Amino acid sequence: MSQPHMPPAHPFDDDKLKEECGIFGIVGVTDAANFVALGLHALQHRGQEAGGIVVHHPEHGFNSARRFGYVRDNFTSQSVMETLPGPIAIGHVRYSTAGSKGATAIRDVQPFFGELSMGGVALAHNGNITNANALRRELIERGSIFQSSSDSECIIHLMARSMGRSIPDRVEEALRKVEGAFSVVAMTRTKLIGVRDPLGVRPLVLGKLGEAWVLSSETCALDIIGAEFIREIAPGEMVVISEKTGVESHFPFRPQKPRFCIFEHVYFSRPDSIIGGRSVYETRRQIGVELAREAPVEADLVCPVPDSGTPAAIGFAHESGIPYGMGIVRNQYVGRTFIEPTEQIRNMGVRLKLNVNRALIKGKRVILVDDSVVRGTTSRKIKEMILDAGAKEVHFRIASPPTAWPCFYGVDTPQRDKLLAATMSEDEMRDHLGVDSLKFISLNGLYRAAGEASGRNDAHPQYCDACFSGEYPVRPADMLEQGFQMKAAE
Amino acid sequence: MSQPHMPPAHPFDDDKLKEECGIFGIVGVTDAANFVALGLHALQHRGQEAGGIVVHHPEHGFNSARRFGYVRDNFTSQSVMETLPGPIAIGHVRYSTAGSKGATAIRDVQPFFGELSMGGVALAHNGNITNANALRRELIERGSIFQSSSDSECIIHLMARSMGRSIPDRVEEALRKVEGAFSVVAMTRTKLIGVRDPLGVRPLVLGKLGEAWVLSSETCALDIIGAEFIREIAPGEMVVISEKTGVESHFPFRPQKPRFCIFEHVYFSRPDSIIGGRSVYETRRQIGVELAREAPVEADLVCPVPDSGTPAAIGFAHESGIPYGMGIVRNQYVGRTFIEPTEQIRNMGVRLKLNVNRALIKGKRVILVDDSVVRGTTSRKIKEMILDAGAKEVHFRIASPPTAWPCFYGVDTPQRDKLLAATMSEDEMRDHLGVDSLKFISLNGLYRAAGEASGRNDAHPQYCDACFSGEYPVRPADMLEQGFQMKAAE
Amino acid sequence: MSQPHMPPAHPFDDDKLKEECGIFGIVGVTDAANFVALGLHALQHRGQEAGGIVVHHPEHGFNSARRFGYVRDNFTSQSVMETLPGPIAIGHVRYSTAGSKGATAIRDVQPFFGELSMGGVALAHNGNITNANALRRELIERGSIFQSSSDSECIIHLMARSMGRSIPDRVEEALRKVEGAFSVVAMTRTKLIGVRDPLGVRPLVLGKLGEAWVLSSETCALDIIGAEFIREIAPGEMVVISEKTGVESHFPFRPQKPRFCIFEHVYFSRPDSIIGGRSVYETRRQIGVELAREAPVEADLVCPVPDSGTPAAIGFAHESGIPYGMGIVRNQYVGRTFIEPTEQIRNMGVRLKLNVNRALIKGKRVILVDDSVVRGTTSRKIKEMILDAGAKEVHFRIASPPTAWPCFYGVDTPQRDKLLAATMSEDEMRDHLGVDSLKFISLNGLYRAAGEASGRNDAHPQYCDACFSGEYPVRPADMLEQGFQMKAAE
Amino acid sequence: MSQPHMPPAHPFDDDKLKEECGIFGIVGVTDAANFVALGLHALQHRGQEAGGIVVHHPEHGFNSARRFGYVRDNFTSQSVMETLPGPIAIGHVRYSTAGSKGATAIRDVQPFFGELSMGGVALAHNGNITNANALRRELIERGSIFQSSSDSECIIHLMARSMGRSIPDRVEEALRKVEGAFSVVAMTRTKLIGVRDPLGVRPLVLGKLGEAWVLSSETCALDIIGAEFIREIAPGEMVVISEKTGVESHFPFRPQKPRFCIFEHVYFSRPDSIIGGRSVYETRRQIGVELAREAPVEADLVCPVPDSGTPAAIGFAHESGIPYGMGIVRNQYVGRTFIEPTEQIRNMGVRLKLNVNRALIKGKRVILVDDSVVRGTTSRKIKEMILDAGAKEVHFRIASPPTAWPCFYGVDTPQRDKLLAATMSEDEMRDHLGVDSLKFISLNGLYRAAGEASGRNDAHPQYCDACFSGEYPVRPADMLEQGFQMKAAE
Repeated sequence: MSQPHMPPAHPFDDDKLKEECGIFGIVGVTDAANFVALGLHALQHRGQEAGGIVVHHPEHGFNSARRFGYVRDNFTSQSVMETLPGPIAIGHVRYSTAGSKGATAIRDVQPFFGELSMGGVALAHNGNITNANALRRELIERGSIFQSSSDSECIIHLMARSMGRSIPDRVEEALRKVEGAFSVVAMTRTKLIGVRDPLGVRPLVLGKLGEAWVLSSETCALDIIGAEFIREIAPGEMVVISEKTGVESHFPFRPQKPRFCIFEHVYFSRPDSIIGGRSVYETRRQIGVELAREAPVEADLVCPVPDSGTPAAIGFAHESGIPYGMGIVRNQYVGRTFIEPTEQIRNMGVRLKLNVNRALIKGKRVILVDDSVVRGTTSRKIKEMILDAGAKEVHFRIASPPTAWPCFYGVDTPQRDKLLAATMSEDEMRDHLGVDSLKFISLNGLYRAAGEASGRNDAHPQYCDACFSGEYPVRPADMLEQGFQMKAAE
Repeated sequence: MSQPHMPPAHPFDDDKLKEECGIFGIVGVTDAANFVALGLHALQHRGQEAGGIVVHHPEHGFNSARRFGYVRDNFTSQSVMETLPGPIAIGHVRYSTAGSKGATAIRDVQPFFGELSMGGVALAHNGNITNANALRRELIERGSIFQSSSDSECIIHLMARSMGRSIPDRVEEALRKVEGAFSVVAMTRTKLIGVRDPLGVRPLVLGKLGEAWVLSSETCALDIIGAEFIREIAPGEMVVISEKTGVESHFPFRPQKPRFCIFEHVYFSRPDSIIGGRSVYETRRQIGVELAREAPVEADLVCPVPDSGTPAAIGFAHESGIPYGMGIVRNQYVGRTFIEPTEQIRNMGVRLKLNVNRALIKGKRVILVDDSVVRGTTSRKIKEMILDAGAKEVHFRIASPPTAWPCFYGVDTPQRDKLLAATMSEDEMRDHLGVDSLKFISLNGLYRAAGEASGRNDAHPQYCDACFSGEYPVRPADMLEQGFQMKAAE
Repeated sequence: MSQPHMPPAHPFDDDKLKEECGIFGIVGVTDAANFVALGLHALQHRGQEAGGIVVHHPEHGFNSARRFGYVRDNFTSQSVMETLPGPIAIGHVRYSTAGSKGATAIRDVQPFFGELSMGGVALAHNGNITNANALRRELIERGSIFQSSSDSECIIHLMARSMGRSIPDRVEEALRKVEGAFSVVAMTRTKLIGVRDPLGVRPLVLGKLGEAWVLSSETCALDIIGAEFIREIAPGEMVVISEKTGVESHFPFRPQKPRFCIFEHVYFSRPDSIIGGRSVYETRRQIGVELAREAPVEADLVCPVPDSGTPAAIGFAHESGIPYGMGIVRNQYVGRTFIEPTEQIRNMGVRLKLNVNRALIKGKRVILVDDSVVRGTTSRKIKEMILDAGAKEVHFRIASPPTAWPCFYGVDTPQRDKLLAATMSEDEMRDHLGVDSLKFISLNGLYRAAGEASGRNDAHPQYCDACFSGEYPVRPADMLEQGFQMKAAE
Repeated sequence: MSQPHMPPAHPFDDDKLKEECGIFGIVGVTDAANFVALGLHALQHRGQEAGGIVVHHPEHGFNSARRFGYVRDNFTSQSVMETLPGPIAIGHVRYSTAGSKGATAIRDVQPFFGELSMGGVALAHNGNITNANALRRELIERGSIFQSSSDSECIIHLMARSMGRSIPDRVEEALRKVEGAFSVVAMTRTKLIGVRDPLGVRPLVLGKLGEAWVLSSETCALDIIGAEFIREIAPGEMVVISEKTGVESHFPFRPQKPRFCIFEHVYFSRPDSIIGGRSVYETRRQIGVELAREAPVEADLVCPVPDSGTPAAIGFAHESGIPYGMGIVRNQYVGRTFIEPTEQIRNMGVRLKLNVNRALIKGKRVILVDDSVVRGTTSRKIKEMILDAGAKEVHFRIASPPTAWPCFYGVDTPQRDKLLAATMSEDEMRDHLGVDSLKFISLNGLYRAAGEASGRNDAHPQYCDACFSGEYPVRPADMLEQGFQMKAAE
């Protein structure tokens, strides 16, 4: 306990949107926690600050471990894993959110656990509850004691106060009071439960490994344990799984048209995951193809900003016929922040993670393909490094539309006035970044790349694209209370 | 987080009763947590497994730290203490209790904290709630989520559900539902609260340091910070203290005749503390005097079993005229358990902590003065070491009556059938230990030494002496439910 | 000290050759150790087990820190770095070698330090001394006390016994007694010294940062601190650098034809480094081009084995016209080894690091481009994963010739009989791996890719290629003593 | 390795002389290191900063562990101890000395190890080499590389350069070149070696445990493992012990009249140890008796300054007839230094460790018995606490003569001008401390208490008492070189 919490540094911390969570559960294996550890390792890109595992064993009851840092550093030692015995377990990886700084932060690490009158329940949540503040006030007024600053804890208190006879009944009752985006994995002593909100904003998939059943945010975590991908949990669906009864499914919420998060395709999910029957890699590659059609430019080299720009860069190069090359090399040992030397090192933060391949860049007209521009700070630094290395021209091609609105559904975005695209036009951004050209893919182009051949249905958009369009499919009640201004109706 | 919890080994772990808690609070200084750390350090003998501090700062709000291990190892670094700013703080040191093994144990470390509708409250408890099981069941039934296995957590949930308008009102209301022994220190953003149960089983004292007010289990913790000892909190008294209003006192419970724990005099409290207007050292020394009168024996040397037998040994030597000497030397670097070598080392556990002063013991008739005999295991080992060193005779004189009944008021005692005195007469114990004589002080002698000139008032005993007499002043409801057999009425 | 040494796991531990060291030094900045930490971070790929830094400060003298684990985890905290003040420093990253298991291993971490009669000297070595055993025996016989099991320590003992008047003189004298491959960075209180062996087997470059001078194994470590690349230290050259006098160069050894390690181009060096005036990336890309010409095959997808196969795959795809794609995705959070679940997970080790992009692979004829085949164990597992994902055909193209001989010049290679290519022909390897085709680049093709237009000069090879050819430019004396059989003369 | 070295705080750090080392060795048991750990634990009072163990196993060779901190914290875990297999081991505990601050300090922790041409040797030293500077210079000149700042390392380099055929021969030859005080324990693969300097300044005893042989600084470490005390190693004796041959003894040095350190009796050794056939406890008790005769005073209470003043206080009380009592209570959880609160706490450092038993002290004339006065800083603080508690008079009685000269034979003493007795008379000290009376035992009284019935033989003193008398039995060559002024001949 005495080891201070020192979260690892992430590349471009201030210049990427960050998915807040990955969730994983399994029932029906001898040592469920080991599988959860592997699954969370594969989902680490969805949350790198902390992780937790809860397990149940017929004799040893519920046990849990919650740690700051990477899964690989916390859930690999015999001494930790042997405290987590049993055939059923769930786990969670997370980013920090605004409320959780300081000495109590480990309490915010999920899964949450509660002893209800019919037995214990653990729950892990990916998404964001948009009416959490109101719920929390009401629950405290009635005597609930919150242990964390997390909005997700509301769910378990709603369950504790429910009159439902079984834990699945109480999960259902609690989630009906909750607004926003949620994919939830929960467990009792014998049952694994999975739920997606009616819009299906966040992903959740079902897998099978021998006789065991698996729930996971993404299919890449099925692959790591060799599980078979069965299907996605449907928007609004709730599954209750046990070794005995297998998978029981029902749909407890009022049905709505699905609005899956399109940014999962652009950046959050791993390229080797399958979403909506479609390879994330293929969508990203296709974005590059669309970009090359929408915004061609004469150049000598197509170069990805590693690693997330790579598939789109491959697509762009293929479509344009311009050679593809590694103009920027990533340092694979990225980690904590070094002490900055007193002599000035320009762009030191970026240099720790990236280096320019000078010999390749020199004298060339370079197209840099990146996944998104948030604040633009990193883009500027990369541009400088490329020019310092002797590039003749620098053209940015961005694999998403301008990010002009914050996300309230489980993604950590800066406040609106910190988003470059909220305050500048594309041309202003180009000048601000100091590049020869800057082009974002169009919203329609993005929808096409994601498989919607005729583009976005503006009347009933097929995805949640609030971060690009400002059209929020669920009213962000807490944020409106705090003064957030919605986009004026046109 | 990755450092496994390895509680330090205590001398004679299996052969002493263990006080379960020490509590301390202060309001009105710049850096309250530093004072609490010092106070807890002075109270470390009351609980060595873990400690916690909660603090409030007008700007930084509530913060807390809870750690396994000694205060000196956890609350001395700048990096920890600077996370605990503010002018008001409370703290707690504890032993582990039966329920708290495994991965969730850090959750059992007090003070407990809850965010109520009128603001946060933290609470630390010394004692034991004898109807905790029933309360817990009822609270869970109604939707409370317990975070710990501690009986003390009931208090804070009772507070959360109270309709009281202020936190002090809610403390009062909660404690009226609670049975058993409790000294409580609690805090709000501005108020320090102290309460003792109507019998006053556990100690709690009030001190003053300049303009600041202090609450502490014992006066020795006032001394370490240079605070003045004002008075004891009276049995059944509740004090609410703030910088502005000073100390407000009232008596919310139905009055009862006080029954302070007499074992605090015998062993739990530090010899330099003042209890009931009386020096603990002096009481212990006087026990030795009484013992010398009640159970004299011809011998060459009076020798304390260090360190707790020392004052009684001094009294015994003085009264008997037999020279006092250090026949047993304590290793002051006692700590974790060493790996036992494969060649057998007899009594290795004891040897790590004690060594016989062979040159002094050899050929002598030795009187060993110890504070108590619980299981008798250590007494046997010490006797063997003394005989191995060449003593001619070994006489045990015990500074307490036979411990024949478990305590249910905040002391960790073995089950009744593990108590030597529950199953053997004095003579049988003497033979079991293999010593030349064994004498315990009488219950009347103990009362006299504690200042009751005419001994125990059997109709209305002045102290709680249930561990000796089997007369429990509060019905141990939870234990009866679990099958404990009370002493048959005579 | 009490933290046990737990070296991070490396991808494909058993199936790659491992460079044993990276070295870095700087003189003339305010806080030299911070620069060395950055430089070593950029050189981390050359040695991931441990790192060390020695620094000198006019007032505080010599200080050092040696740690197991990554630079980013050890040399980033204020508390460590503030113990390393001063304007001159050198550092070292390393792999473990056979001799250094067990409790004394930290002593093997360089730089080594010795107090000589004219002052202290620290020294870091990349390479391997082929007559170390004989030197060590002789030095011990005469009274030297070795602190490590490292061959490099001989150098500092030879210096201690030298009659040379200055430390540079002694470095020179010591290195003249040493056989094998060495690039050395050393420092006195004011001087930075760099030396390369006469063959120039291992790299060493000179850089400049303002008024400060830098020595580094590779240019990528100059880039990270923004230093300018001045030139390579020449084979057989010794430079002595001080703030006052700048760089003084001479050539103390008998001149020989250079034989730079060609495997540095293939795998060891970072793609963004410049070696011999040539971009490593470009050489690797060109290897892919040569491979596509030498060993074409009809297929649907060219797919690199990440990350080291990427540049050659890009070249292969470009030359062949077959689309390039990320058929294998790397998990960027690779780390320690997880506990293997009891249910069998096939190829678990590989799955932790790599996942197949199933949607892309399915139904395709896939060309996998990898840098080398050592034992072949990983290649087999990757092939299985690709086939499981539904590939129609799998063709391996390897960016180096068959590795049939161990390296004795500072690279950790398995014993000869563990090298797949030492016991099998290309066709046998193809069958052993179970792939549709397997082709290695020819030695001539490799030389051409490295810029030797007419290929290998078999009479006087331009590079050391002993691992491919069995032609050792320096007699491996210690190994011959231990029974190693050289290739029979033809 | 990343755990910073944080030495535990010691009571009265600045106001006690500190023994610098304890040594222990054993041969002939299955798991020698476990025994050494226990022995060092019993010798912890001789050195609390760090400890080390070296062990040899026929298969696993030599292994070692060196750690900062207490033996109980470092050599008790399975993970450490299982790296130390084998039937022969030696160990060392130490204080830090002036030269060893900073990043290289772990290198100063003994035992030292060297690989000689005939095999490895480890060596641990208690004492001080008074010609170490000259030896060191000469050895470096000839090519030895020192790894530590310790004077003891000279011995092992002298051994490495010796032409002796066996390790025992080389130990002997090396020690003949060394001046000063030394008790040495060394080991080869099969032999345990013990040596005392010709004056026998530092202790060393021989014990037997079944078939195994033990060497130890004090007998208390024999007791902890249940070994039998055989005899002291004689001044000037060297013993070579193996399982096969048993104990072989010879006397390699020119014989001298022994001069054992008398301060071992006063303070360094544990009271339960036997030195020179005499119980340390008994000598200390007798010092109290002599003090009561030499310096009687009318008073109400004799009170030891815990813990080292206790035996003399018992003797003083017994002889004077004045009651003995615990006027000062020691906090047994003393440890690291707490953060000092901003409000001033007077004498905080002392309060962490000691508290006054106010009820006992109040209104009394108190005699405080302490072992020594070095700087006088602690004595002043204790006096203040006693007066604050309401004592009527405070009389100090000191169980040693005034400490007026530094020790150069293995004890950490302040520079001469920091010693209170070097600059003040007894009366001046009394006034400086502000007590009613202050008396030191006379040198003759001390000798009598130590068993020399007719006191000190001034022509041929029986002990080394340089710290009191300024008569140094070995010329302190290094210190004279650094400007130390010896006492003028009278």
